[in-house]
Amino acid sequence: MFNAIVSADTLRTALDSVSVLVDECKIHLEADGLAIQAVDPANVGMVDLSLSAAAFESYEADGGVIGVNLSRLEDIAGMAEAGQLVHLELDEETRKLHIAIDGLEYTLALIDPDSIRQEPDLPDLDLPAEIVIEGRDIDRAVTAADMVSDHIALGVDADAEHFYVDAEGDTDDVHLELDREDLIDLQAGDAHSLFSLDYLQDMNRAIPKDAEVTMELGEEFPIKMHFDIAEGEGAATYLLAPRIQSD
Amino acid sequence: MFNAIVSADTLRTALDSVSVLVDECKIHLEADGLAIQAVDPANVGMVDLSLSAAAFESYEADGGVIGVNLSRLEDIAGMAEAGQLVHLELDEETRKLHIAIDGLEYTLALIDPDSIRQEPDLPDLDLPAEIVIEGRDIDRAVTAADMVSDHIALGVDADAEHFYVDAEGDTDDVHLELDREDLIDLQAGDAHSLFSLDYLQDMNRAIPKDAEVTMELGEEFPIKMHFDIAEGEGAATYLLAPRIQSD
Amino acid sequence: MFNAIVSADTLRTALDSVSVLVDECKIHLEADGLAIQAVDPANVGMVDLSLSAAAFESYEADGGVIGVNLSRLEDIAGMAEAGQLVHLELDEETRKLHIAIDGLEYTLALIDPDSIRQEPDLPDLDLPAEIVIEGRDIDRAVTAADMVSDHIALGVDADAEHFYVDAEGDTDDVHLELDREDLIDLQAGDAHSLFSLDYLQDMNRAIPKDAEVTMELGEEFPIKMHFDIAEGEGAATYLLAPRIQSD
Repeated sequence: MFNAIVSADTLRTALDSVSVLVDECKIHLEADGLAIQAVDPANVGMVDLSLSAAAFESYEADGGVIGVNLSRLEDIAGMAEAGQLVHLELDEETRKLHIAIDGLEYTLALIDPDSIRQEPDLPDLDLPAEIVIEGRDIDRAVTAADMVSDHIALGVDADAEHFYVDAEGDTDDVHLELDREDLIDLQAGDAHSLFSLDYLQDMNRAIPKDAEVTMELGEEFPIKMHFDIAEGEGAATYLLAPRIQSD
Repeated sequence: MFNAIVSADTLRTALDSVSVLVDECKIHLEADGLAIQAVDPANVGMVDLSLSAAAFESYEADGGVIGVNLSRLEDIAGMAEAGQLVHLELDEETRKLHIAIDGLEYTLALIDPDSIRQEPDLPDLDLPAEIVIEGRDIDRAVTAADMVSDHIALGVDADAEHFYVDAEGDTDDVHLELDREDLIDLQAGDAHSLFSLDYLQDMNRAIPKDAEVTMELGEEFPIKMHFDIAEGEGAATYLLAPRIQSD
Repeated sequence: MFNAIVSADTLRTALDSVSVLVDECKIHLEADGLAIQAVDPANVGMVDLSLSAAAFESYEADGGVIGVNLSRLEDIAGMAEAGQLVHLELDEETRKLHIAIDGLEYTLALIDPDSIRQEPDLPDLDLPAEIVIEGRDIDRAVTAADMVSDHIALGVDADAEHFYVDAEGDTDDVHLELDREDLIDLQAGDAHSLFSLDYLQDMNRAIPKDAEVTMELGEEFPIKMHFDIAEGEGAATYLLAPRIQSD
């Protein structure tokens, strides 16, 4: 059983954070909210999304799992105007999702969850450095790095107490340093890892510019990025595997 | 003789409603206003446009007919800023149309009206159902239907007293129901016809979102859509032939 | 030595006026400001740009010359938000330009000035007619002419005391006349020359719509267009060679 009403904006934000990594996903319809975990086909980027029942206008579910085509679901949510409500109701018999927006009904065929790529085990990492950074600063770093390279180094200098971004191109370089004052928070610890810029750009697209993003980093370890959505009633966590440094 | 001054907005709106169906058309320069009738090359969609002399700042004409390239004329009108006036004057000798916008003069070569596809005889239909609907609701229905199919059924349920839209795709369906309260007006009568979505989308592009569109429907009959332009000093009527239902 | 701070808007405006003609250029780092002269590969269009030290928040230079990739430099300046400052500093040893925008550092490899196309000798022309025209009127003329032709005639009728634009297409023509009232200033003198529309469109893109452009014209002579940038603390001059009339 699944029957919920949610604002189109909240639904779109939640779906966007997953669709930057995968085309299809399983959605767990838990009693206390929705949960999605997914990993991209190359096993490099993972996402863990939760949207609590409190993020909905009304919410009823009892623990099922559905498989959805994300871009299709985003297109449907995209038809709603800002502020409009989206009514989602699962028809258990036909395995279709009924989506209603102000009189308009869309019947979405679901995907067999067993045919969808298995959900990842999100590793429990204990990373030495943690910063809290504004979404717009991630955007600046990623945009600048993209001008010179296809990979990007992120690190924390424990002594100097700053977070840094490095991208080295064939002729040009990009460097960004943010110290305690530029960041929302900094727990220093030595960290330095190289990442694929493509993945970081995809994740960046889903991070609101005004989000406070908690970033955990280590030495040649995955990076973890966490931010709230739906005014704190939901959360998204990205995990991105490092590239092997070739020097 | 033809010599007229009209606001660029009015001219653009009038031309747009025809250009969604055809590239070239004949314009009748009647004493009491302009009139255009056109049918698309496949004989599926027709348009009947009139713009009365009162829609112009000044208007003089005596019954001639000119042939024009619509996209060219739209490009010229598009150079005017909102609120600017467009002066149109026919040079009978050279068969060219002089178009002046704030000091800028464009001399447009006309097309021999005899070389343009013959104008349609708009059939006089007596359709059983008539609704008055907002342009934005047509837009919603057409946009949603396009996500699942390339045709769309429009109908009126006389008993339930509602207008409905149905689009059936291979896996997903779209359904919209608007009752008396959702519509501006409803004269119930059983109606149900299937249409090509391409044509309805083209017509939809020319229908202002805030227009009140009178829609007449029947059982496997053409649909007729009528709306005012130029603050009531002009009108556009579309006629769209149904597709044969293959079930 | 070169160390300067300038608003991103001023830097972008200055670079844009040169990049519409060439991809790379030499920048003269004079004690009293920057100077750029460049000619397009076909020797048809020239630009002379100056940006005085007063246009900068701070400025120090002692006469060097650097070679830059303009689109790269524009991309970097484009990362700054409106109102942000750009810090430029030349590293004499590495021959790289350090560009800092609010903590973000970009290291730009310079181009050997000797490898860049030689700067033009801007001819000292004494042209018989001079008008001062708004940028938006140049835009209107160029946009309209482009609808019918790939070249454009600009001239001044000394007797009628007006500036005119003519474009003749295969079937359609465009004509614009601006008299003393429509212009900011007019010093009449007979002038008529034909120009490539491509070049004039490129220059037009860099001319602000609200700029007062001083245009000097002659009989089958180059046209000279001059306008201020950076609130009068900089200036751009274009020189465009005429096409030979083939009639």
